[in-house]
Amino acid sequence: FFLFATKPKITKNPQITVELLRHLRQAMKNSKYITEPIQAYIVPSGDAHQSEYIAPCDCRHEFICGFNGSAGTAIVTEQHAALWTDGRYFLQASQQMDNNWTLMKMGLKETPSQEEWLISVLPENSKVGVDPWIIAADQWKNMSKALSNAGHSLVAVQDNLIDAIWEDRPPRPSTKLIDLGLKYNGLTWQDKVTALRGKMAERKVSWFVVTALDEIAWLFNLRGSDIEYNPVFFAYAIIGISNIKLFVDSKRLLHPAVQEHLELDSPSKPELTIQCFPYESVYTELQAVCAALAPKEKMWICDKASCALTRVIPKAHRSAIPYTPLCLAKAVKNPTEIQGMKMAHIKDAVALCELFAWLEKEIPKGTVTEISVADKAEELRSQQKDFVGLSFPTISSVGPNGAIIHYRPLPETNRTLSLNEVYLIDSGAQYLDGTTDVTRTVHFGTPSDYEKECFTYVLKGHIAVSAAVFPNGTKGHLLDSFARASLWDSGLDYLHGTGHGVGCFLNVHEGPCGISYKTFADEPLEAGMIVSDEPGYYEDGSFGIRLENVVLVIPAKTKYNYRNRGSLTFEPLTLVPIQLKMINTDLLTQKERDWVNDYHRKCREAVGAELERQGRKVALDWLIRETLPIV
Amino acid sequence: FFLFATKPKITKNPQITVELLRHLRQAMKNSKYITEPIQAYIVPSGDAHQSEYIAPCDCRHEFICGFNGSAGTAIVTEQHAALWTDGRYFLQASQQMDNNWTLMKMGLKETPSQEEWLISVLPENSKVGVDPWIIAADQWKNMSKALSNAGHSLVAVQDNLIDAIWEDRPPRPSTKLIDLGLKYNGLTWQDKVTALRGKMAERKVSWFVVTALDEIAWLFNLRGSDIEYNPVFFAYAIIGISNIKLFVDSKRLLHPAVQEHLELDSPSKPELTIQCFPYESVYTELQAVCAALAPKEKMWICDKASCALTRVIPKAHRSAIPYTPLCLAKAVKNPTEIQGMKMAHIKDAVALCELFAWLEKEIPKGTVTEISVADKAEELRSQQKDFVGLSFPTISSVGPNGAIIHYRPLPETNRTLSLNEVYLIDSGAQYLDGTTDVTRTVHFGTPSDYEKECFTYVLKGHIAVSAAVFPNGTKGHLLDSFARASLWDSGLDYLHGTGHGVGCFLNVHEGPCGISYKTFADEPLEAGMIVSDEPGYYEDGSFGIRLENVVLVIPAKTKYNYRNRGSLTFEPLTLVPIQLKMINTDLLTQKERDWVNDYHRKCREAVGAELERQGRKVALDWLIRETLPIV
Repeated sequence: FFLFATKPKITKNPQITVELLRHLRQAMKNSKYITEPIQAYIVPSGDAHQSEYIAPCDCRHEFICGFNGSAGTAIVTEQHAALWTDGRYFLQASQQMDNNWTLMKMGLKETPSQEEWLISVLPENSKVGVDPWIIAADQWKNMSKALSNAGHSLVAVQDNLIDAIWEDRPPRPSTKLIDLGLKYNGLTWQDKVTALRGKMAERKVSWFVVTALDEIAWLFNLRGSDIEYNPVFFAYAIIGISNIKLFVDSKRLLHPAVQEHLELDSPSKPELTIQCFPYESVYTELQAVCAALAPKEKMWICDKASCALTRVIPKAHRSAIPYTPLCLAKAVKNPTEIQGMKMAHIKDAVALCELFAWLEKEIPKGTVTEISVADKAEELRSQQKDFVGLSFPTISSVGPNGAIIHYRPLPETNRTLSLNEVYLIDSGAQYLDGTTDVTRTVHFGTPSDYEKECFTYVLKGHIAVSAAVFPNGTKGHLLDSFARASLWDSGLDYLHGTGHGVGCFLNVHEGPCGISYKTFADEPLEAGMIVSDEPGYYEDGSFGIRLENVVLVIPAKTKYNYRNRGSLTFEPLTLVPIQLKMINTDLLTQKERDWVNDYHRKCREAVGAELERQGRKVALDWLIRETLPIV
Repeated sequence: FFLFATKPKITKNPQITVELLRHLRQAMKNSKYITEPIQAYIVPSGDAHQSEYIAPCDCRHEFICGFNGSAGTAIVTEQHAALWTDGRYFLQASQQMDNNWTLMKMGLKETPSQEEWLISVLPENSKVGVDPWIIAADQWKNMSKALSNAGHSLVAVQDNLIDAIWEDRPPRPSTKLIDLGLKYNGLTWQDKVTALRGKMAERKVSWFVVTALDEIAWLFNLRGSDIEYNPVFFAYAIIGISNIKLFVDSKRLLHPAVQEHLELDSPSKPELTIQCFPYESVYTELQAVCAALAPKEKMWICDKASCALTRVIPKAHRSAIPYTPLCLAKAVKNPTEIQGMKMAHIKDAVALCELFAWLEKEIPKGTVTEISVADKAEELRSQQKDFVGLSFPTISSVGPNGAIIHYRPLPETNRTLSLNEVYLIDSGAQYLDGTTDVTRTVHFGTPSDYEKECFTYVLKGHIAVSAAVFPNGTKGHLLDSFARASLWDSGLDYLHGTGHGVGCFLNVHEGPCGISYKTFADEPLEAGMIVSDEPGYYEDGSFGIRLENVVLVIPAKTKYNYRNRGSLTFEPLTLVPIQLKMINTDLLTQKERDWVNDYHRKCREAVGAELERQGRKVALDWLIRETLPIV
C-alpha cells in the first residue's frame, strides 16, 4: 500500500456548500477572528502534527468542500473556491465536489500553483490567512515569500475559521493509552530518552520539540487509538538534557498502568522525571523554555512542524531539521521489533491464505464483492493473536477498479469478483507485535496473455528491488529505477513510488526512508530498516496490477568488499504466495525463477507451520499447491 | 572523462608561501582595499563566470597555495591557512601544498565545513571577506547565513586581494573570435535570440542576464580560445525583449567577419541590433537597465551567477533560476549539430584506431610512456579535419596510476606501458564540428582473471545505461544505478557519477543533464541531448578501469506506449572498439553479447569507411580484428 486512504463519499449538496462558503467569507471579515479582513483563506490538509491520517475533528477540507482524500488544500477567496489535489484524487475530487468549487489538478502543466493562482485572482495588497498550527513551517516560508514578492501578505489567523463555522465539529479524541511492555518494544522509554540525549549532546543541542505523533508514541512506548489505522495519540513532548515535558490530555495519565509505566510517582532518576502538562499548553510552556535559553543554546524542531510552534523558538536558537533523531532511531528496528514484525507477517499470511482459499471456493457462486472480500479479510485477520485493527482501509478492486490506484470500494462502485477479471487486494493490519501491508494481484479464471505479460514485468521489477545488493549508505531512491526497468523496456510504467518505510505497530507509512524517484532527501538505508517493495502497472479502464511485500534491510554477503563499506540487501517479511498462474515464466531469467521458488519455499515453511499449528487444513492445502516450484 | 583537469605540479617552496600569506594578511588590514580589517579572506576557485576551467589570470587559489586542482576553496585567517577540496584531489593537494597550509578533505565525516571551521577559529564578531565576483549568489547566501547566525559577517571586498598581491598576474585573454557559420551551427544567432525571447515572453520575463561563457558563445554562434580546452571567450550579455547588449573587449569586434556576423553596421531588424560595451562595464550598464525597470518587470539571472552581478538586480525584479533557458536550448542539439558530433566522433575514432594499432607495435620496445601516448594521441587527432585542440588534458595512466581517477601524467609520475599492466586512456578533442570524450581500458599482454572480471562488470554497467529504455521526461540521475548494479552485486562500486552533458564544439562538461546519483536537480533527458556513459572501477594501488562513450538521446521504439509518453534510449556516438581481450564473456548475458557485437559492427562500418577513405591500412586491419563478433 503506497498511497493514502479515502473515506465513504459524501452526497453532493450544492446548497450546503453555498451556505458554508458564505459563512466562511463572513468569518474572513469578522473582527472577532481577525484584526483586518483577509481576502483569501487557506485550508491545508492535515492536523497540528502534520499527520498523514487525521482525526474527524481535523477533516477541515472535507467539511468545507466535500472532498475527503487525504491530500488536498482548499483556498477560498471572496469570489472563488478552489481545491488542489494530486493525480491520485482527480476522479474522486471531481465526483465529491460540486460546482461551487474548482478542482486544481496538481502536476499538470496548465494548473497554476496555489501561489500563482492567488496572485492572479487577488486584488492588490491582499491579506491571505492561514491557521499557523496546520501549516508546516517550510510551507509557510515558501507561500509567504511568493505572496510578499507579489505585494500581498500571508497572515496567521489564530482561530481556525473552519472550526469557527463548524457547528457539530467532533471533539479531539482522547482514547486509552496502552503500555506494550518490553516484550514488544525491546527498549525502555528511559533508554530511548538517554540515547536521544546522546544525539543531542553530539550536536550540542539542548532541547528538542517533538511534534510527530508516531515519534512520541515510539519514544514513550505508548500507543493510543486517536486516529483510525494509526495507533497514536495526541501529544507533544519537549525533551531537554535534564527535562522531559509531556503534553497530553491529563485524564489519560490517570490509569495506574500508565502512571507506573511513565514512573510519574517515583521516577528512577531525576533526569528521567516526566513533567506532565495539558495538551494545549505546549505553546506557553515552549515560550517559557525559550525565554530561559542561554545565548548559544540550540533547540531542534522538525522543519515539518507547525509554523505556530516553530515560530515560538527564536531564530537564533532554532535548528530546523528535515528528519529528527527520533524519526531515524525509530526507522532502524531493534531485534525485538524485527522478531515482532516477522511474527505479525506470518499471522497476516495465515489470514490471507485462508482468504484466497475461501475466494477460490466462493467466487464461482457470484456473490463475492470487493466489499465482502475486504470484510472477510478483516474478519480473518481479527482471528489472529494480538490483532488490533487494520493499518489502512483495504483496497479491494476488480477489473477496471484496480486501475484506480487509491481505490477503496464504496457501495456505488462495488463490483462482483468473477472468473474473468483481475483482482487486486492491498491490505494490512496492526498487531501488537507489528504492522503489515501486502498487495497481491490474482486471477480466478484464466488471465489473458497481456495481463500475464504485464504482471510478469511487475514481478521482475519487484524481484529486481528485493534481490538488489547495494553498498551501505545507499539511499533508497537509487533503487527505484530497478523496479521499473522491465516495464520501461516495453514502454510501460507506473506513476507512484516503489516503497515507503513501515512502522512497527505504528504508522504504515513512516520516514525517513523509502524507494521513490520523487524524493532525494531520504536517509540512507541501514540494516534493520523496513520498507515496502511495490511496483505496479495500471491499465486505465481495464485492470490494475501491484505486487507488494514488506522487506527488511539486512547485510549482504558479497564476493568482494570495496573500501570495506559492506553491502545490504532485502529479506521479505511478507510471506504470501505470488500467483503462479499470472506469471509468464518465459519472460523470467533463471535467477528470477530461482527467486520465486526460494520465496515460495520460505512461505511454505514459515506460514505452513503456523497454518498447521492453527489447524487450518484448507488454507494449508492451498498454500502447498500455490508454492509449487516453477521451471 | 567525468572529472576535472590538473596541471603540472608547482615545486613546493615554503618560503614563498610564507611571504604570500604575509602579504595577503597585510592586505586584509589595508584600508586601501577594505574599510575595516577583515579576520578571514575566502578564495573560491573559479572566475567571474563560474567557469569550470579557468584562464591563468583567474588561477588564484593556485597562486596562493600551490594546489592547482580545479575545485578548491582557500581560506586565510590571521593565524591559519586552509584549503578545502574533494576526494579526487586529496593526494594531489597534499603533494602540492607545504605545511603553511592545512588540507581539509571534503566528504570525510571528521572534516569541518568552511562555515564550521571559520566559526571555530574566528574571534567573536569577525568580518570575513570575499570577492563578490568570484562567489556565486547561492554560495554567498549560505555562507552569509551561517556566519551571521554565529555572530560574524560576510563582507564583499570589491578589490580582489589576491590580485592585489599578485605581481606578475597574467592579463585576461582576448583571443580572436571565430564565426563558425550555419554549416556548423544549424541556427542563426538571430533565430536563437528570437527563440529565447519566446521563452522570456512565456514566463513574462523582460530581461535576461547571461553570465555563463558557453551560453554566450552558443547564443552568438561565436567561439574564442580564452580558456584552454574550452572554445569560449570572456563576455557578458544582457538580452531584453527588444535589446541585445554584448559586453566584450571591443578590440575583438574590429574584425570584419565578426562585424558582419553580428550585423554591427547594418542590423536586419531594430530588435536584433547588438549594442556593444566593454567587458568591464556590465556592472554599470546592468545598474542602468535596472534603474529603468517598470514596477513588475522581471529579470532572469542564473542562481550560479556571481553575487556581485546578482545583487545589482533589486530583489523584487530578480528571478534567479537554476538553469537558464539558454542552458536548456543548448543541451538539445539541432540536426546540424548532431551530424557534426557524429562526424567528429568518427574522425576521433580514426585517430584512436591509429593510436591503438601503433601502441601494439611500439609497447614491446619498452619506450612508450603515459606522456608519449598522450602526445601521440594529440598528434593523431591533429591530423583530422577541423581539429582545434584537446577538449581536456589527456588522462593516460598505467597500472596503479589508473586508480587515481583524475590522474594526469607528469614527468615525475610517468610510467612506461608494458605487457603486464592495464592501461587507461581518457581523452577527447575539439573539432569545429563537435567535441569528443572517450575512455578505453586495454591490456597489451594477458589480463588477469580479476582484471577481466572487473572490466566485465564495468562493461555490463556501461551497456545497462547505453541500452536502457526509459520514458520521456525521465531525469538522467534515475539511470545511474543501472551502471552500478553488476558491480554492486559483487560488492564493488565507483565513487564518481556516470555521465555528464557534452557540448557541441563547446565545453566537454555542460548542464543541465547528466547521469549521477549526486544530483537531483538535473533536467529531464530529451531526444537530441548528448551525455557521456562512463562507469568505472578503481583498485587502489593496482589498476583503474573506465569505459566511456558519448551517447545521443534518441526516441526508442517500444512494444507499448503508456499514456502516449513515448520512450527514449541512447545511440553511441563514440565508435571505438571495446577490447575483447578484457571481457569475460561468460559473465555476459546473450543480450549483452548482442549489444557488443552490434556496437562493433557499427564501429567497423562507420570508422572502417573513414579509415579506408584516409588510406590508413594498418589501423583498418586493427579495427577489423578488434571488432570480430564474440559468442
